[in-house]
Amino acid sequence: MTQRHRKSHGRRIEHPLRARKLGIDSHSEALVFLHRDSAVCRSEGFSAHNRILLCAGDRRIVATLYQVTDSIIGRNEAGLSDVAWERLGLSDGDEIEAVHPPPLDSLSLVRSRIYGNALDKQAFREIIGDIVAGDYSDIHIASFVTACATKPLDAAEVLSLTEAMVESGDRLSWNKDIVVDKHSVGGLPGNRTTPIVVAIMASLGLTMPKTSSRAITSPAGTADTMETLAPVDLDPEEIHRVVEQEGGCVVWGGAVNLSPADDILIRVERALDLDSEGQLIASVLSKKAAAGATHLVLDMPVGPTAKVRSTAAAMMLEKGLLAVAQSFGMRAVVVVSDGNQPVGHGIGPALEARDVLAVLNNHADAPTDLRDRALKLAGALLELANAAPEGHGIAVARSALQDGRAARKFEAICTAQGGRRTPPVSTHRRDIAATRSGRIDAIDNRKIAKLAKLAGAPEARAAGVEMHARLGDVATSGRALCTVHAETPGELDYALSYAAANADMFWIEDI
Amino acid sequence: MTQRHRKSHGRRIEHPLRARKLGIDSHSEALVFLHRDSAVCRSEGFSAHNRILLCAGDRRIVATLYQVTDSIIGRNEAGLSDVAWERLGLSDGDEIEAVHPPPLDSLSLVRSRIYGNALDKQAFREIIGDIVAGDYSDIHIASFVTACATKPLDAAEVLSLTEAMVESGDRLSWNKDIVVDKHSVGGLPGNRTTPIVVAIMASLGLTMPKTSSRAITSPAGTADTMETLAPVDLDPEEIHRVVEQEGGCVVWGGAVNLSPADDILIRVERALDLDSEGQLIASVLSKKAAAGATHLVLDMPVGPTAKVRSTAAAMMLEKGLLAVAQSFGMRAVVVVSDGNQPVGHGIGPALEARDVLAVLNNHADAPTDLRDRALKLAGALLELANAAPEGHGIAVARSALQDGRAARKFEAICTAQGGRRTPPVSTHRRDIAATRSGRIDAIDNRKIAKLAKLAGAPEARAAGVEMHARLGDVATSGRALCTVHAETPGELDYALSYAAANADMFWIEDI
Repeated sequence: MTQRHRKSHGRRIEHPLRARKLGIDSHSEALVFLHRDSAVCRSEGFSAHNRILLCAGDRRIVATLYQVTDSIIGRNEAGLSDVAWERLGLSDGDEIEAVHPPPLDSLSLVRSRIYGNALDKQAFREIIGDIVAGDYSDIHIASFVTACATKPLDAAEVLSLTEAMVESGDRLSWNKDIVVDKHSVGGLPGNRTTPIVVAIMASLGLTMPKTSSRAITSPAGTADTMETLAPVDLDPEEIHRVVEQEGGCVVWGGAVNLSPADDILIRVERALDLDSEGQLIASVLSKKAAAGATHLVLDMPVGPTAKVRSTAAAMMLEKGLLAVAQSFGMRAVVVVSDGNQPVGHGIGPALEARDVLAVLNNHADAPTDLRDRALKLAGALLELANAAPEGHGIAVARSALQDGRAARKFEAICTAQGGRRTPPVSTHRRDIAATRSGRIDAIDNRKIAKLAKLAGAPEARAAGVEMHARLGDVATSGRALCTVHAETPGELDYALSYAAANADMFWIEDI
Repeated sequence: MTQRHRKSHGRRIEHPLRARKLGIDSHSEALVFLHRDSAVCRSEGFSAHNRILLCAGDRRIVATLYQVTDSIIGRNEAGLSDVAWERLGLSDGDEIEAVHPPPLDSLSLVRSRIYGNALDKQAFREIIGDIVAGDYSDIHIASFVTACATKPLDAAEVLSLTEAMVESGDRLSWNKDIVVDKHSVGGLPGNRTTPIVVAIMASLGLTMPKTSSRAITSPAGTADTMETLAPVDLDPEEIHRVVEQEGGCVVWGGAVNLSPADDILIRVERALDLDSEGQLIASVLSKKAAAGATHLVLDMPVGPTAKVRSTAAAMMLEKGLLAVAQSFGMRAVVVVSDGNQPVGHGIGPALEARDVLAVLNNHADAPTDLRDRALKLAGALLELANAAPEGHGIAVARSALQDGRAARKFEAICTAQGGRRTPPVSTHRRDIAATRSGRIDAIDNRKIAKLAKLAGAPEARAAGVEMHARLGDVATSGRALCTVHAETPGELDYALSYAAANADMFWIEDI
């Protein structure tokens, strides 16, 4: 809420509107629905898609207007989307006022950048502040994001943007010289190394307070997977307690307000399928700086369908990351990995949790690729934090895993987060069999992910896909390539018909 | 509707939804409201703000999804905004299907431009085609517009964009060697020269089929003003009949589908307050090329609060316009004019119509500034079209005005358009008096326009502002500076309280 929004406070309300919660999820963009013939629409000359200022007591937000001609909204009513309702702190029947918003001054800074000028720290601070306050519509955000990609942000701008994003939210602090963290760039199905890495690092005495996201477009986020093993909805005090006690945690980041601009920008970038280097650096490092990290490992799967497509691009990105990280007193390292196929056996919250437990408990059937990736990341992080000699990080991590320290630490973390849970098991399963024999030459990550989502993941925690085949394996006609897990017969059917129509998700070549 | 949308036709509908018209005006962006717990949201994994493909029989559109948790939408229902409803051609209770849309291939062209590559004609054709088909969300459009402004379009790109915009809609053709047209860049309140210019040109035997817009953010568009004098909602056949009979018309462009991309792009550019030269050229010339114009005069008011702020900028723009116009076989000329204060006496549809009639009929109290501007534009157009010798255009235009030819032609055009109307007269008026004596040093165009809108313009046709003072006039404390006209007492009050709070709309200095 910026100062200028408060100016109109204290005036009499010209056309009071009765607030009504419509129960509409519109993400972070506030919506208001007014009747076209309402006194306020007529007198203020509002038209559809206008941005208007809504005032309720001391609270003010800017919302996008849709005009209604039908009876679903009365002439003295204002229908609000959920985010508008919450940000205004309303109860049903409260009176609100709708007026033209004050000019959005920071838009002139976006325009200035469009017209070729670099932005300074104060400019990014104003833009990001207005974005977090909800004053920007999606149109404005898309323009900002595009302007920063079309004329790429220079090094100083990336730093300014990152700082502005950190300042826009809360910061965690840990009273430790070394706080390690991990981030994965670009989702590879099943790549659930985080709980393993946290367990290893914490078992070795390091501090790793990991905040993770839920799935947005993928079949599972780390928070979704972890939630099948322990509660993850912890508030900042609870997080501090867990980390002080156990050295690490794996919690959902939604309850802590770290770099809130990031989630808003990412949603728009995703809609544009746009990922500029500067924004990626600011996105990752603002979250990590706000989380209080000092040493950071970045998992960067590289492959033809991955976010990063070449080792050269990964190295470029590393260079930019290191420069900005240094300004925040952070050290970062990029670990490039193979992004050609899903990781582990399971895809979906509970199936991935099962893989995590198998690796932690050194089961004979634990997926070796998941274990090796986790060890590589933990090893790099140990070396970066000077907790293992150069070249010995993986060996140190492996010993913590093999002798059970990591498994015990993981159980302790789960207990501290509120109690260890047993991941649910699916009630409906069906194998998908190879339709021919031959060598598996390609696996389509995107289609496998979609299959898992159609089966119900991540909402249906036990749903997803269990992989039986990997690249280079020899498939036999009629033998299972994977098993679909679901919680309802309908979702199972839906996934199976998708699989039948997309048999090319496994590409089998004659040997 | 693009080809790829038809691919899924013929499949069985997995989760049929009962279509319901919600009566929501969302401009050109189609919206769909689905219950979050509907089978289709669960199985397809839709989330808020997703773009989804709606199918009804042969018709397919892409709409932005909002998810509803309340009972306003049932679990088997799809609530649709007006534009979605119309584009799907639905009747209440029709069954529709909602699925993931095919990938929006042309977005990769937008990204390519963001990453530094110029676009060719085929690229613009695909992007503009998808925009007109409604496949782009506002986020996508904002990104495209911003990418074309941040790295300005080169001359070849401006031409390609203009051509693509012309191709995206209908074209009028006139079987004439010379078809004249006029466009005003940047609205100055009361600058209603078009009906006068059309009457003069047509009275001199030229062809001037003028399509105009209604007000979007201003107190009156040319179509709103003309509508108080004659019907303006003519279809293409009727327009042809009027123009064949009288040589000219002043009709609303909304009934003819000329450069439909333009209206969509302008809406987003306005939200961004972004006006890049390349887009302005494409916007103006695509409409004019589609309207079949061969000779074009551009009225360009220049002033500190106008769209174009310097004569140098006006000349730059002229250069770009001429180059693209030439490629379409069009000749264009820019007439720079004073943009420091409103034009004429009246602001608002009927008040402006009264000024137009006063000028056409050579009334003693006709506003001389409006007359002089119209003569200057008509003169420039006559010379450009070789219908008057160099340097004599204004004199030729003046004689057509003075001897009554223009007035008779205007009456004939009104009759041909469906019958001359008498502009309505306001029922409620109040003077706004000077609060001090002195010389009027500045008039705020923006505030005067807002005052007229608060009084009810353009919906209330008789509403608006009647100006009594101009720059340089000596004001006397207590004497009227302007009169507010309204159709209801409530709107009059609303305008007056705005005027009281904004006395600086007239800036009076001691003499």
